[in-house]
Amino acid sequence: MRNPTFEVFSQGEEIVTGQVVDTNAAWLSQQAVAMGFTVTRHTAVGDKLEDLVQVLLDISARADCCICTGGLGPTSDDLTAEAVAKAFGLPLVFDEIAFRQIEQFFRNRNRQMPACNRKQAMLPQGSIRLANCKGTAPGFALEQGRCWFAFVPGVPSEMRHLFHEHIQTMLADRFVLQPSQLITIKTIGIGESDLQERISKIVIPPQVQLGFRAELGEVQTKLLFPGDYPQLQLENLAHQVASAIGDAVFAIDGFGHQSSDLVSVVDHLMAEKGHALAVVETISQGLLAAKMIGMPWLLSAVYEQSIATLTQRLSVKNHPDDLITTAKALAGAVQKSTGANMVLIQLTASDYYINPHDDKAVTVTSTLLADGEYKHAVRSLAGDIKRKQHQAALSSLDLLRRHLQGKEIV
Amino acid sequence: MRNPTFEVFSQGEEIVTGQVVDTNAAWLSQQAVAMGFTVTRHTAVGDKLEDLVQVLLDISARADCCICTGGLGPTSDDLTAEAVAKAFGLPLVFDEIAFRQIEQFFRNRNRQMPACNRKQAMLPQGSIRLANCKGTAPGFALEQGRCWFAFVPGVPSEMRHLFHEHIQTMLADRFVLQPSQLITIKTIGIGESDLQERISKIVIPPQVQLGFRAELGEVQTKLLFPGDYPQLQLENLAHQVASAIGDAVFAIDGFGHQSSDLVSVVDHLMAEKGHALAVVETISQGLLAAKMIGMPWLLSAVYEQSIATLTQRLSVKNHPDDLITTAKALAGAVQKSTGANMVLIQLTASDYYINPHDDKAVTVTSTLLADGEYKHAVRSLAGDIKRKQHQAALSSLDLLRRHLQGKEIV
Repeated sequence: MRNPTFEVFSQGEEIVTGQVVDTNAAWLSQQAVAMGFTVTRHTAVGDKLEDLVQVLLDISARADCCICTGGLGPTSDDLTAEAVAKAFGLPLVFDEIAFRQIEQFFRNRNRQMPACNRKQAMLPQGSIRLANCKGTAPGFALEQGRCWFAFVPGVPSEMRHLFHEHIQTMLADRFVLQPSQLITIKTIGIGESDLQERISKIVIPPQVQLGFRAELGEVQTKLLFPGDYPQLQLENLAHQVASAIGDAVFAIDGFGHQSSDLVSVVDHLMAEKGHALAVVETISQGLLAAKMIGMPWLLSAVYEQSIATLTQRLSVKNHPDDLITTAKALAGAVQKSTGANMVLIQLTASDYYINPHDDKAVTVTSTLLADGEYKHAVRSLAGDIKRKQHQAALSSLDLLRRHLQGKEIV
Repeated sequence: MRNPTFEVFSQGEEIVTGQVVDTNAAWLSQQAVAMGFTVTRHTAVGDKLEDLVQVLLDISARADCCICTGGLGPTSDDLTAEAVAKAFGLPLVFDEIAFRQIEQFFRNRNRQMPACNRKQAMLPQGSIRLANCKGTAPGFALEQGRCWFAFVPGVPSEMRHLFHEHIQTMLADRFVLQPSQLITIKTIGIGESDLQERISKIVIPPQVQLGFRAELGEVQTKLLFPGDYPQLQLENLAHQVASAIGDAVFAIDGFGHQSSDLVSVVDHLMAEKGHALAVVETISQGLLAAKMIGMPWLLSAVYEQSIATLTQRLSVKNHPDDLITTAKALAGAVQKSTGANMVLIQLTASDYYINPHDDKAVTVTSTLLADGEYKHAVRSLAGDIKRKQHQAALSSLDLLRRHLQGKEIV
């Protein structure tokens, strides 16, 4: 069976002029590959009507499916609907329901709908409206020539929402697809080359594609299986790889359940066990708490530039040369004042983390107080200050994750 | 004068399948725009020879200049040179110098050159070699049809190196370029359609391109001027647009100095005036502090899920029905305990912001205590919880920005 072909067409001056990197194209392609499409091309043009028209005509003769992003906004440089109308001879028609949904979007935000937004309710005749509760621009879908097109806004959150809400099902209904199966083994606190070494003894069959992807401290090991690969063998291989990697694995995605990141893994376990947490941050400076947004088990978070000030405020003795002792004393005091059964303290001996121009490595010590016991994790952080901030938040979070999952603390 | 047109053509399965985001296309486009090209299109295809050939033929008839990235590696799926040969009838010729440079690359690293790397010394007849000291693959340049093509590796560091080392000069020599000038007016707390309404009375000359870009609460109004536009008129128009928009403008980029985001604008003013800040966050939950990473004027930040607990800890009376009174009392107490001359308090009457599944709008009140005076900004936040979190952080930050810039507080 030949897979249906899939293209992504991105519209926007900000894309072709390079002001914005087109992450939508990559995201949509990943989804399409996972569903069983063969992605053949990405195209991006600016807001020149004749270019848009030409690309639409070319794609309609070439691809089985195309998702088009951008150009659906209310302003005069948003030309996608007009280009569709011109390319395919489909006049734009006022869509009463789309208009009311746009009005409602503004009403829900206590804002007056500006007149120009009416334009977004003009859809090509015969197209199917894709309601968009995350923004003002509805998407739409239509078939032309060989190709089934879906048009969605370029704002990534809206694009993703419309894809999951409408397009995914429409594609599954419309095409005969043999999805390949992707297993993603997610790790934290281990580098890509270490990972590769640990699994080097495992024989990966040639029809299974092995890949790695590193992003801000998280490394994913990807196993892409063909659709007809025996399920039992698939599971065996995935678990063999995961156990060779060890306790750095915090989640394995691809066995049906939802995809999980480090925060959601921690959230699930904290909520299930009814824990409550208070944190003290230094180098992550609020980012650890920020990552826990929407999680009612986070009671309190404090950032203090000066450890001396913090210890003084909590009437705790500061031991500048003994972070662990200071951390334990702080944890006890925070537990008393917040009533949280778990306390996470992040300290660093160096003050220069607040200097954005200093790339020197810093050591961050995370201390977890839980069930009357203290656990510690020490990490060396390098790179620019935003990278250090992010790594510090992840490393404290990973201490909590290892404790909750009963994994080894390193 | 019409700018020459410029396209980027990216080759690689990892691009079309979405495993890698094509940052090269954006980077090259920025360089091209700055030099005075009009970037008209990005195209990406995988490693199918017939697709590569077709795209090359199309571009040679359409664009004045094209930079092609990827497909120059030593393996069998690297097909770019072959595609060029086939598309333009240029046989691949062994390039002795290229071969010796590849050998040298390996010798310098004490490695044996694998046999397959010889392929990288086969260049299309008549092309100009672009020596690449950062990797094994030389680039090459040639003219076909209307278009001048340069072919470079897809590895970003090699691509950038070849661009700076060879291509930039070749382009400047070859084309008559008039660099255009981009002015970006940056605003916060105002929607795209509101923006457009405010500037609708201003006559924008047809040769000036007006565009908008919205990203997470920040909206940019972009004015792209042709290179020969009179400087005085350019400045007048930019300031006319900015003043029609009003106090929502926090920065105007494009007049030579570095580009500025909201945080860096605040940072600059806080540091210049020697201020020190303490913050209390609710719905932004650490994200406000996290945005101020690397800024030594942030002394302290607190997140507390319960306002009742927070007021109790600071020995302040809680007025659940009067946020402003509570905020003022908290600000005073925080000022006393931290010694910061400025205090920013963020409160919300609703507790349900901690429910990630509730999309109801919430109202956030930011209170700034500075020079013994209190200033307040109230914003309604909608969308999912991460969006609310981000908007809350921005709205508190914008109150601080307006105070520092002496702008109206709304």
